[in-house]
This record gives sequence, C-alpha cells and structure tokens, in this order.
Amino acid sequence: MNVEAAMRSAAAQADAVKGSTYPNPPVGAVILDRDGAIAGVGATQPAGGPHAEVIALRRAGERARGGAAVVTLEPCNHHGRTPPCVDALLQQGVSRVVYSVADPNPVASGGAERLAEAGVEVEAGVLADEVAGGALREWLHRQRTGRPHVTWKFAASIDGRSAAADGSSQWITGEAARADVHRLRAAADAIVVGTGTVFADDPTLTARLPDGSLAERQPLRVVVGEREISSEARVLNDDSRTMVIRTRDPHEVVRALADRTDVLLEGGPTLAGAFLRAGVVDRILAYLAPILLGGPVTAVDDVGVANIVAAQRWRYDGVERVGADLRVSLVPG
Amino acid sequence: MNVEAAMRSAAAQADAVKGSTYPNPPVGAVILDRDGAIAGVGATQPAGGPHAEVIALRRAGERARGGAAVVTLEPCNHHGRTPPCVDALLQQGVSRVVYSVADPNPVASGGAERLAEAGVEVEAGVLADEVAGGALREWLHRQRTGRPHVTWKFAASIDGRSAAADGSSQWITGEAARADVHRLRAAADAIVVGTGTVFADDPTLTARLPDGSLAERQPLRVVVGEREISSEARVLNDDSRTMVIRTRDPHEVVRALADRTDVLLEGGPTLAGAFLRAGVVDRILAYLAPILLGGPVTAVDDVGVANIVAAQRWRYDGVERVGADLRVSLVPG
Ligand SMILES: NC(=O)c1ccc[n+]([C@@H]2O[C@H](COP(=O)([O-])OP(=O)(O)OC[C@H]3O[C@@H](n4cnc5c(N)ncnc54)[C@H](OP(=O)(O)O)[C@@H]3O)[C@@H](O)[C@H]2O)c1
Ligand SMILES: NC(=O)c1ccc[n+]([C@@H]2O[C@H](COP(=O)([O-])OP(=O)(O)OC[C@H]3O[C@@H](n4cnc5c(N)ncnc54)[C@H](OP(=O)(O)O)[C@@H]3O)[C@@H](O)[C@H]2O)c1
Repeated sequence: MNVEAAMRSAAAQADAVKGSTYPNPPVGAVILDRDGAIAGVGATQPAGGPHAEVIALRRAGERARGGAAVVTLEPCNHHGRTPPCVDALLQQGVSRVVYSVADPNPVASGGAERLAEAGVEVEAGVLADEVAGGALREWLHRQRTGRPHVTWKFAASIDGRSAAADGSSQWITGEAARADVHRLRAAADAIVVGTGTVFADDPTLTARLPDGSLAERQPLRVVVGEREISSEARVLNDDSRTMVIRTRDPHEVVRALADRTDVLLEGGPTLAGAFLRAGVVDRILAYLAPILLGGPVTAVDDVGVANIVAAQRWRYDGVERVGADLRVSLVPG
Repeated sequence: MNVEAAMRSAAAQADAVKGSTYPNPPVGAVILDRDGAIAGVGATQPAGGPHAEVIALRRAGERARGGAAVVTLEPCNHHGRTPPCVDALLQQGVSRVVYSVADPNPVASGGAERLAEAGVEVEAGVLADEVAGGALREWLHRQRTGRPHVTWKFAASIDGRSAAADGSSQWITGEAARADVHRLRAAADAIVVGTGTVFADDPTLTARLPDGSLAERQPLRVVVGEREISSEARVLNDDSRTMVIRTRDPHEVVRALADRTDVLLEGGPTLAGAFLRAGVVDRILAYLAPILLGGPVTAVDDVGVANIVAAQRWRYDGVERVGADLRVSLVPG
C-alpha cells in the first residue's frame, strides 16, 4: 500500500473517533510493515487513553520494526497524561514516519525533529489539505486561534428557502443528508439555536442514529435569546445537557463555549444572521435540496450587507452529493 | 484513440456549433482510420450546409475506408436539403459506425438499421447521458415534445439572493460564470425577461465576448409583461431583434416562440415564478456565488408552493465549479 492510500485509511480512523477525544485531537494512524502491508491501525482514544500511534503500534507488534508509521498529525513529543508518541515509535524501531499536518501546539510539537535526529526518515504534508479540512479542522482552528470553531449549518431549497411559505420544513433534505447532520451533531461539542427555533419547532436537538435511537455521544445543547423558554421544551429533556444563554450577543455565546472545540450553529435565520454579522462563523455547511419552495422563509435574514460591494465573501472548499442533495462547504474567502 | 475519447471529441465539435445549425441538430463527428487514429472531424454546418459526418468524411478522404465513424447522433437516413449521411458513410467504405443518441425524428431515423443491413458494424449509446444532456439537449426535447426547451438561468448568492438589499447585483458571480452565461446566450434562440427587469436594469440582453464585443450570433430578445417599455430601452437597440409580448401568460410566451428550440429565461423573480408555476421550465441552471447577501431580494418569489409537501421536486443533473462559483443544473425530478 502506498503512503497516500495509508493516509486516507488513517484519516478514516480519525473521522470515526471525532468528537470523543477531547481535549486531544482526533488522530488516525496506520503502521505499514517492511513490505508495505498494513500491520496495525489506530485512532486517538478518549482523554487519558492512548494516542493513535500507540494503538496502531500495539496492534502491529514486531511487524512495526523497520516499517513505516503513517499518521494524520505530527507525533507528539511531550508527556501529557500519556508518554510521548515519539518514544513509542523509536522503541518499536519504525524506520519511517509520514505525517500529514504539523502540530501547531508548541508544547506537543518538535516530534518530527526528534524522530529525524534519531535517524528516522520523516516526511510531512501528505494529503495535508484533505486532512486539515477533515477531522482535525476544528482542533487545528482552536490551536491556532484559541477559540472554538463555529460551523453554521443550514438546509435550504435550491432557491434559498429553509421552509415553505406556511413554515413547514420537515423534511427539506433527504434521508442521507439528515443522517449526515446527525453524524455532525454526534461529533460536535455543542449545538446552538435561538429561542425562536425552540418556540417554533420544539426540537430535541439530539444526535440520533438512522434507527431513531440516541447516538452514544450527545453534544451540549445551547439555546440563545432573552425570552424564557418553557420548562416543558424538549430541548430541556434528559437526552443531553442544555445551556440557556440569555443574551443576543454572539460573542458572549462564543465566550460561554470557550472550552469547546466544535460548535454547530443550527439557526434559525435570526440567530444565524447575528453570528454572521458578528463575524464568528468559521465555516458554512449548506445542504441544498433539489426543490423549489419560494415564499418568505429564507435560511438567513440580515447578514449586515447593504449593497453588493459589501457582500460577505467566502470560498467553496468542498462540494459533494449526499443522496439526492448537495452538501456545500464554504470557508472565509 | 478509443471510441469514448473520440465521442468526447465529437461532442466538443457539436458544442462549438450549438446555436448555429437551426433547424438541424448540432452534431459532431470524428472519423478514425483503420489504426484508430483521427482522420477527420466535423460538425453540422448552418442550414443547407453539410452535416457533421459529411464534413468529417471529406476531411478523412481515403483514410475513412475500413475505419470508424464516431457520431453524437444516429446518422440520418433521409433526403432533406442534403442527401442522407448514411449514403456518404457507405460510399466511403466506413466499416464501423458508433453513435451516442438515437434519432427520435421518425423521418430521419432508420440510419442505424440501414447501415447494419449494409454490413457495417453499428454500436449505439456510447456516452449517451453526457451527449443527450449536452449540445443535443434542447433539440432532443423539441423532437420529443414539439415544444421549445426552456432553461431558467439565475445567479444567486449561496443564501439564495439575486441582489443585495439595495437592489445592486453587479456582479454577483465572477468573470468565468459571466463568460459562461454569454456563451449560453450566443447559443440560445431567445432570451426572455419581464418588463420589471427592463425597468430596473435597462439591460441590452446581448451575447458578448470576453472583450465586450458582440458575439457573432445574437438570440432574439423577448420582453414579457403588460406595461409598455420605453422606446429608449436598450433592449430595443440594433444589436439584435426584439419581441415584446404584452401578456402575463407563460403559455402564450412559449406559443409565440413555438418555432425556436433553445429558450433562455433570465427572470427576474416575478417572471421566473410565473414560468415555474405554469410548469413550462425544462431545466434550471443556477450560478451560485460563494457570498452572503441576506435581505429581501430572492432569485424567485412565488413558485406556487403552499407547504413542504407541495414542493416542486427536481433533481441535480450536473454540478461544476466555474471559476469561484458553482454551476448547478437541475431537471424535473
Ligand atoms: N432549515 C434550517 O436549517 C433551520 C434551522 C433552524 C431553524 N429553522 C427555522 O427557523 C425558524 C425560527 O426562526 P427564528 O429566526 O425565529 O429562530 P432563531 O434564530 O433560532 O431564534 C431567533 C431568536 O434568537 C434570539 N436572538 C439571539 N441573538 C439575537 C440577535 N443578535 N438578534 C436578534 N435575535 C437574537 C432572539 O430571541 P429573544 O427574543 O428570546 O432574545 C430571536 O427571537 C423555525 O421555523 C425553524 O424551523 C430552520
Ligand atoms: N440574478 C438574476 O439572475 C436576475 C435576472 C434577472 C433579473 N434580476 C433582477 O430582478 C429585478 C426585477 O424583478 P422583477 O420581478 O420586477 O422582474 P421581472 O420578473 O423581469 O418582471 C416582472 C414583470 O413581468 C411581468 N409579468 C409577466 N408575466 C407575469 C405574471 N404571470 N405575473 C406577474 N407579472 C408578470 C409583469 O409586468 P407588467 O406589469 O408589465 O405586466 C411584472 O411586473 C431586477 O432588480 C433585476 O436586477 C435578477
């Protein structure tokens, strides 16, 4: 197996644990033996548990000797709750380490240097854009900015409506897109909506599996706005914890979530507009259904743009079909 | 060269003449010699001129003998203003004919059968979806339904706005998308707008080249609505012909354009809504810019949908990046 294929497989390992590794990054690793065959795979375990490289090395055993470690993030070089991964890689006699993204954390970084000094062949940057825009996206953002990463997710018709004229919106997008959103939720640290959505839809805001049962991991539910919501609101049920933030200031919301990494803003249009005007959205994920609705209900109302010259400029960083729908990812232009 | 590659090349020939072949279909042809090398290419000439196969055969000369003809449409079998292409293919001793789409026109069809009877190896359906959705799309629609093919084209921000709150909209999409629209216009038979667009923007509605000069071929400009437009309106200038249809009935517009093939509906939102409600739109082409605008101006207003269950259902049949923008094609679901 070539290193690109191994990196894709490592990235898939990381995707599968995304959301469960806090405060550690979701990392994936693949050990190839001398002949280039997969000897072991691994992903970061929950806090206090071993890192991806260690799991993969354990599985590879003696086959790691003289082989290669393919890892989505530069192996760490510091004693946290676990010993440095670099030590484990050296102990097991890996002769080559390939990683995708450098560790921006000054405490943990330096792994590549120490490996090279010990005579290990080190290669960086393999599939870097894909990996940095994948499972590591939010963690890297947090490392670089000190703030949680906010994704505004919306579902709309191709003519930009998030509900029909009468307010009905179940379901704009199809099953595959909805399952995708539940996976996003299960990997997120918090889901944010405004009081308007609670009053209008009374959603539970949980992550569910395709069979309707609760996902193992549930994000914190966050309701933003000055009005009091009913104590009977479903968002306050026992399926997960809920934070009610009685403000209209998006910055205050971001501060209240300062120790989280992956925040999913689910709207509605008023709150989404407030976040976009405040400039605290780091990614837009639009699920566009191949339908027309027309009418007054749009996915966002006022984004603070008076004329075309003042348009908020983003750029596409991914476009995919999800079932019959389109999933479009945008990052600041 | 394999036949798929040759068919792609034939399709590119057809794209280049689209719009100039009325009433004939825009067809492309490639002749491969015995060794599979390209011996000649051709595309349909303007009415009365030779068909694609004949041009390609002429260019191939003796090299056609024992070779293959790769054609986007089944070779015709009837005497129109030119003799049947089947005769030319047989005369020049082609031993194999590969075509993509069968001719739905009962008068011209039967070409494949006659070729097979004459001992020519015939293969149909190569890249059929691509070719049928490409240059031949509108012509095939007309053959099958007897009506012109109507494409509703709109440009919008990713939040579904076709202008900023103050009405400014130049330019929502980038240069590449605008050039694409001018190519569409140059290939179309008619461009349709409502009086509202004429009053608001005073557009010329011409097809222009990237340097701003007029394209060789200009579609008929059509203005729809009961109000009288100013005789000074630019849409009435000498750059092309203009038809003013004083109605609000989309069916009447389609009837007035009954002898056209490729009609481009450019809006605005009121007229687009009327066409969509009337069910006379055959394709939607959305140019989605990676920007946010918010505000009240959407690409279409009322499409006659009261609730989500009644949504107009379409399906994506193409998604492409065009410069920084996204070009999304939809056909009825
Ligand atoms: N298609 C989708 O992706 C999607 C997603 C979510 C919701 N929706 C739809 O959205 C509709 C609800 O719309 P909505 O706009 O009322 O919901 P919303 O944005 O969830 O809530 C609006 C409320 O947020 C509070 N708020 C917080 N910060 C604010 C600020 N800076 N400025 C103004 N208000 C602020 C206000 O509540 P207070 O008055 O309490 O301060 C305001 O009334 C529902 O029909 C729902 O189905 C669609
Ligand atoms: N982004 C884009 O892709 C795009 C494209 C085109 C235009 N635009 C924008 O659209 C804006 C103009 O909007 P608009 O909606 O006024 O323009 P419009 O749709 O071009 O024209 C509306 C007019 O069409 C006539 N009409 C024809 N059939 C009708 C029907 N069945 N029902 C109602 N009216 C019918 C009416 O005129 P009468 O009163 O004369 O009968 C109506 O006022 C401009 O700002 C322009 O920039 C955007």
